[in-house]
Amino acid sequence: MNKGFLLVVSGPSGVGKGTILHDLMNMQKNLVYSVSCTTRKKREGEIEGISYFITTYSEFEKKLDNKEFLEYAKVHNNYYGTPKDFVEQKINEGKIVILEIDVQGAMNVKKNSKDGVYIFVAPPSLDELQRRIKGRGTETEADIDIRMHNAVGELSYIQEYDYLIINDHINSAINDINEIINAEKHKVNRIDYNFN
Amino acid sequence: MNKGFLLVVSGPSGVGKGTILHDLMNMQKNLVYSVSCTTRKKREGEIEGISYFITTYSEFEKKLDNKEFLEYAKVHNNYYGTPKDFVEQKINEGKIVILEIDVQGAMNVKKNSKDGVYIFVAPPSLDELQRRIKGRGTETEADIDIRMHNAVGELSYIQEYDYLIINDHINSAINDINEIINAEKHKVNRIDYNFN
Repeated sequence: MNKGFLLVVSGPSGVGKGTILHDLMNMQKNLVYSVSCTTRKKREGEIEGISYFITTYSEFEKKLDNKEFLEYAKVHNNYYGTPKDFVEQKINEGKIVILEIDVQGAMNVKKNSKDGVYIFVAPPSLDELQRRIKGRGTETEADIDIRMHNAVGELSYIQEYDYLIINDHINSAINDINEIINAEKHKVNRIDYNFN
Repeated sequence: MNKGFLLVVSGPSGVGKGTILHDLMNMQKNLVYSVSCTTRKKREGEIEGISYFITTYSEFEKKLDNKEFLEYAKVHNNYYGTPKDFVEQKINEGKIVILEIDVQGAMNVKKNSKDGVYIFVAPPSLDELQRRIKGRGTETEADIDIRMHNAVGELSYIQEYDYLIINDHINSAINDINEIINAEKHKVNRIDYNFN
């Protein structure tokens, strides 16, 4: 059977990553979202093993010691991590595992994983990004400033990624990533080929 | 302007490379065939600079000394080489330069070029390859044996390539390579992006 791969997607907040990935899930067979492990309490409607793997503090830290995460972060006093075994199992089943993550997380994954595919989604320009964030109408001026500041920081990591998608028109961005996934499926190291 | 790239395509004789590339030329803008430099005489209908660059023996050997070829070979007492400057110029113009070449040539290109994309086109099986070669009805039994022997040798180089296309159905093989080309256009090092 052909192997899948880990698809890491980053890009500034507001650039449209979520929408792109949502639509791709409907276009591509074999796509699954990575499921994080966390110490935070389960919320209404969340399903163990689908939304998150919920674990205790001490269990999480034991896993940390055992290097069982591709990356992890502590946010508001809770741990969040990407479990290696989940990702590897899915890849061996031929799945493409999507990990939408910020540049810091992506760089940590890169250190801990040999064979990921790294896509950066960028806005056509900073002005356009600001228009999109303002267009949501949910952010204060101060929030927008923070997001724009962070965006510039994230954009400085583009060269660390394999592919750059400039999200000018959402449908071409979706199509571009769809083609990248199809191309990556043909990488020689993923194909189980026997000519005899 | 975005940069193009060199697309090296190999695969056993009879696998369908020529047909695939011919159809791709009609589907993709910016595709050009690499133009070889040779010492053999111009044939009826061939155009200098389009079909071949024709040169003398001594000029060719001077270019060889100056490392002006990505690869070269001597066949029936004539030299054939892939000129570096032609390929680099086209890449800088944003073109994708197609080089259909055997595995030995491809391995030499790989040594002399940093940023090529290497695709291997393989048959679904050796039996199927033999059926296709026999189907042409142009080869003697001895020729077929030589081709099959060479095919096994070529197939042993698959791991040296980036992508593997199994040419089971010609239209999906064309589509697969088309998507690989589109994906490769999005490699970060080829994209001229300025967010300001």
